[in-house]
Amino acid sequence: MKFSAQQIAQALNGKVEGDPDVEVNNLSKIEHGEAGTLSFLANPKYTSYIYTTNASIVIVNNDFKPDKPLSPTLIRVEDAYSSFATLLEMYNQAKKKRSGISKHVSIADSAKIGKDVYIGDFVSIGENSVIGDGCIIHPNTTIGNNCKVGSITTIYSGVNIYDDCIIGNECTLHAGTVIGADGFGFAPQNDNNYRKIPQIGNVIVEDLVEIGANTTIDRATIGSTVIKKGVKIDNLIQIAHNVTIGENTVIAAQTGISGSTSIGRNCMIGGQVGIIGHLEIADGVMIAAQSGIGKSIKEEKTVHEGSPAFSYRDFQRSYIHFRRLDSIVKRVNEVERQLKEKK
Amino acid sequence: MKFSAQQIAQALNGKVEGDPDVEVNNLSKIEHGEAGTLSFLANPKYTSYIYTTNASIVIVNNDFKPDKPLSPTLIRVEDAYSSFATLLEMYNQAKKKRSGISKHVSIADSAKIGKDVYIGDFVSIGENSVIGDGCIIHPNTTIGNNCKVGSITTIYSGVNIYDDCIIGNECTLHAGTVIGADGFGFAPQNDNNYRKIPQIGNVIVEDLVEIGANTTIDRATIGSTVIKKGVKIDNLIQIAHNVTIGENTVIAAQTGISGSTSIGRNCMIGGQVGIIGHLEIADGVMIAAQSGIGKSIKEEKTVHEGSPAFSYRDFQRSYIHFRRLDSIVKRVNEVERQLKEKK
Amino acid sequence: MKFSAQQIAQALNGKVEGDPDVEVNNLSKIEHGEAGTLSFLANPKYTSYIYTTNASIVIVNNDFKPDKPLSPTLIRVEDAYSSFATLLEMYNQAKKKRSGISKHVSIADSAKIGKDVYIGDFVSIGENSVIGDGCIIHPNTTIGNNCKVGSITTIYSGVNIYDDCIIGNECTLHAGTVIGADGFGFAPQNDNNYRKIPQIGNVIVEDLVEIGANTTIDRATIGSTVIKKGVKIDNLIQIAHNVTIGENTVIAAQTGISGSTSIGRNCMIGGQVGIIGHLEIADGVMIAAQSGIGKSIKEEKTVHEGSPAFSYRDFQRSYIHFRRLDSIVKRVNEVERQLKEKK
Repeated sequence: MKFSAQQIAQALNGKVEGDPDVEVNNLSKIEHGEAGTLSFLANPKYTSYIYTTNASIVIVNNDFKPDKPLSPTLIRVEDAYSSFATLLEMYNQAKKKRSGISKHVSIADSAKIGKDVYIGDFVSIGENSVIGDGCIIHPNTTIGNNCKVGSITTIYSGVNIYDDCIIGNECTLHAGTVIGADGFGFAPQNDNNYRKIPQIGNVIVEDLVEIGANTTIDRATIGSTVIKKGVKIDNLIQIAHNVTIGENTVIAAQTGISGSTSIGRNCMIGGQVGIIGHLEIADGVMIAAQSGIGKSIKEEKTVHEGSPAFSYRDFQRSYIHFRRLDSIVKRVNEVERQLKEKK
Repeated sequence: MKFSAQQIAQALNGKVEGDPDVEVNNLSKIEHGEAGTLSFLANPKYTSYIYTTNASIVIVNNDFKPDKPLSPTLIRVEDAYSSFATLLEMYNQAKKKRSGISKHVSIADSAKIGKDVYIGDFVSIGENSVIGDGCIIHPNTTIGNNCKVGSITTIYSGVNIYDDCIIGNECTLHAGTVIGADGFGFAPQNDNNYRKIPQIGNVIVEDLVEIGANTTIDRATIGSTVIKKGVKIDNLIQIAHNVTIGENTVIAAQTGISGSTSIGRNCMIGGQVGIIGHLEIADGVMIAAQSGIGKSIKEEKTVHEGSPAFSYRDFQRSYIHFRRLDSIVKRVNEVERQLKEKK
Repeated sequence: MKFSAQQIAQALNGKVEGDPDVEVNNLSKIEHGEAGTLSFLANPKYTSYIYTTNASIVIVNNDFKPDKPLSPTLIRVEDAYSSFATLLEMYNQAKKKRSGISKHVSIADSAKIGKDVYIGDFVSIGENSVIGDGCIIHPNTTIGNNCKVGSITTIYSGVNIYDDCIIGNECTLHAGTVIGADGFGFAPQNDNNYRKIPQIGNVIVEDLVEIGANTTIDRATIGSTVIKKGVKIDNLIQIAHNVTIGENTVIAAQTGISGSTSIGRNCMIGGQVGIIGHLEIADGVMIAAQSGIGKSIKEEKTVHEGSPAFSYRDFQRSYIHFRRLDSIVKRVNEVERQLKEKK
C-alpha cells in the first residue's frame, strides 16, 4: 500500500511543496521519521525536527515558514494535527479490513452468520450462535454454543468464548481473551477437599467495550457477569464471576476483581490492583496502581491507594514517613535517652 | 431445553401448586428472577422476594405458607435448597454434555483415544498421547507428544499442553491454560548474556484438579512440577518449574509461585500473592491477597500478610499505625519541642 | 528413544563400569533417580546418593572411588558435570526436533516459508509473511499479515502474532503469547466515554529473545515496541505500547511495564513488578519482586524495592521498623506520659 504525496494532498485537500511523486507506505513521528514514511508538524516545540527528519513527506500548517532548507516534501493543510489524525484513522481502517470466510472453518449448521463478515482459518462456531453483520473474527478463535456477537465487532485470534455468552456491537476482543470460563466456586467438604459449585450463568459484554489480550472474564454462578457499555479493559486482567463493571470505566493491565463485586461507572483503575469480592465501588472512583481494595468505597470520585488502600492523599503522607522511618525511630531513641538522663 | 413445572416436580418428588404446564429454560436467584426461569426459597430472609419475583417457578419447603397472593407456580419439596442444588447440578451436566469427534481434528496415528470422548474442531493430539474415557476436549486445543490425560477430564478450548505432561482423572482445565512450557532458567555468561538451561522435565497434574483460564504451569528442569490431588487453581496464575502444590490447596487468581517452592496441603492462598523460589510452605497455611512470601513458613495453619509478609495479626497492627503515621510523627515533633523547651 | 550405557559412553568418550547393555530413556537428578534414567555425580556433597539411587546409569568423574557396593552402571568421564550438561542439551534437542508441514495448515500464497521448517496442525500464516529457515511452529498458532520470523526460531502452540510484527533469529515464543495487540490508548471525550486512538505501529523482537507463556506485548501507537537482543521474559508479563527493553535484560513472571517506558540493558526485574509509563530505567538496574516504579531511575546498577519503590537498602531498613511499629508507637505513648508527669 503506497501513496504518493499528490494522492495524499488530494485526500486532505492540501497543497504539495516538493516532489509530488514521492511515495510513502507508513506513518511516523517526526522525531523518528524514516524514509518512506509520512509525518506531521503541528506543535512548534517539534519544529527543529523538520530539518533533520528522514520522513519523506511532512504535513504542515498553511502558515509554516521554514527558516532553513529542508528535504521532505511538504503537504500544506489548514490543520496539520487533525489531517494527520484523519490519515491515521484511514490507514488503520485499511490495514484492519478483511472479508470473506476461510474454507478452513467449522460453523455449526444452526449458527447464524451476518453479512459482510470475515471469519479466519480454524475458527469454530457452535450450535445456535449468532454472529452480527460486519464482524471480523480472526483465526483459531472458538465461539461456543448459544453465543451472540453483535455487529461490527472485532475478535482477534485465539479468543475463547464459552457457551451462552453475549458480546455487544462495536466491541474489540484481543487475542487469547477468555470469556465465560467457570467462576472459581468450591464448597469445602468435611475431609478437606472441595465440591465444585456449578457455574451456570454467563457473561454479557455490552456495546463499545474493548478487552485486552489474555484477559479472563468468568461466567456468573447464576445470572450474568456484566461489562457495561464503553468499558475499556487492558491485558491480563481477571474479572471473576458475577462482577459488574459500570459504563465507561477503564481498567489497566493485570488488575483482578473478585467475585460479585460491583464497580461504578467512569471509574479509573490502575494496573495490578486487586479488589476483593462482594464490594461496591462508587462512580468515578480512581484507584492507584498496585492498590488492594478491601472494603466498599461509597464516596464518588474519591482517590485511593495502598494495600489495603485508603485515601490517596493520606497514603502519600504516610508513605513519606515510611521512607524515613529509620530517622524517625532514631529521634524516638534520642527522646527516650534525654528523658532517662533527666530522671 | 425447556421443562414444565410438572416434569420438574416429578424429578424432585414434589407437589405442584399453580400452573403445572408453565415452562422454564434457566435457573435464577429469587431476587433477580426473570420470566421463564426457576428459582428457590430456602432462607426466610429472602421470603419477601417471592411476592415480587418474576421467576415462573419457585421451589419452596413443604411448610412454606404465603401470607399474600403470589404469581409463580410453586413446587413444594422437603428441602428446597438441596432440591435446587440437585437441579443446578443436573442442568450443568446437561449443558456441558458433548460427544463425538469432530472431523476437523488432527490425531496422531500412535495416539490412543478412550471411549465416549468428545474432541472438538481443530484439536491437535501428538504422537503416543493417551486420552482417557469420557474426556471432553474443546476446539483449538493442542496436546503434544507422549502426553497422558486421565478419564472424565474436561479440557476447554485453546488449552496448550506440551510434550510429556500428565493430567489426571476428573480434572478441569480452563481455556488458554498452558501446561509444560519451559521453566525460566538461564545461566549468566561472562559477556552479560544468558545461555538457556534445557528444561527436560514435565508437569504432573493429579486427579480432581481444576485449573483456571490462561494459567501457566511450567515443566520441571529435571523431574516434575507436581499439582497434587484436589488442588484448585484460579485464572492467570504462574506456577514455575519444579514447584509442588499439596493436596486440596486452593490458590486465587494472579498469584505467582517461583521455581522449586513446595506448598503444603490444605493451604489457602489469596489473589496476586508472590512466593519466591526454593521455599517450603507448611500444611494449612493461609496467605492474604497481594502478600509477598520471602522465606519458608514452617508452622502449620498460620496466617500471613504483607510484602514481605509476616504474621497476619502483626501486619494488621502495624498497618493501623502506618495509616496514621502522619499524626504519630507530629506527636514525636511535639515531644521534641517540649524537651527542648525544658532544657 | 532408548540408549544403552555403551552408546552413551561412546558419545561421551567415557568408560563403562557395569552392564554395558542397560538402557535409559530419560535423565534424572541422582537424589530422585528412577530405574531407566541416567544421572550424574559431580558435587561430593551428593556422593551418598550414588549408593541409594535407582538411576540405571550414573556418570562419574574418572577419579571417583566407591567405598561401598553400588547398583548403577557407571560411565567414567573426565568431567561428569559437563558431560551431563552435554547429554542434557542433546536430549533436549532430540525431544524438541520436528519437521515437515502438517497438511492441516493455512498458509497464504504470498507467504514465504524457509527450508527445514516444521509447521504444526491448524497454523494460519497470513499474506506476505516470511518464515525463516529452520523455524518450528507448533499447532494452533496464528501469524498475521506482513510478519517476519527469523531463522531457527521456535514458536509454541496457540501463539498469536498480529500483522506487521517482526521476530528475530533463534527466539523462543512460548504457548499463548500475544505479540502486537493494540496498545491501550483511548482519548477521553466530553460525555465520559472514550475514542480509540489507532495503534498502527508494530512489535520488533530481536534475536535470541525468549518470551514466556501467555505474555502480552502490545504494538506501538506509531513506531515500534522493541524487545532487544538476548532479552528473557517470563510468563504472564504485560509489555505496553512503545516500550523498549534493552539487551539481555531479564524479567520475571507477572511483571507489567506501562506505555513508552524504556528499560536499559542488563537489568534484572523481579516478578509482579509494576512500572508506570514514560520512564527511563538505567542499565543494570535491579528491581525487587512486587515493587512499583513510579519515576525514572537514572543511576546504573542500583537496586530498588517498595511500592512506590526507593533504594532497596532504605526500604529494608524502613520495613524492619514497620514490622515493629506497634512497639514504637507504645514507646511514643510512654514518652508522652512521662513528659506529662513532669509538668
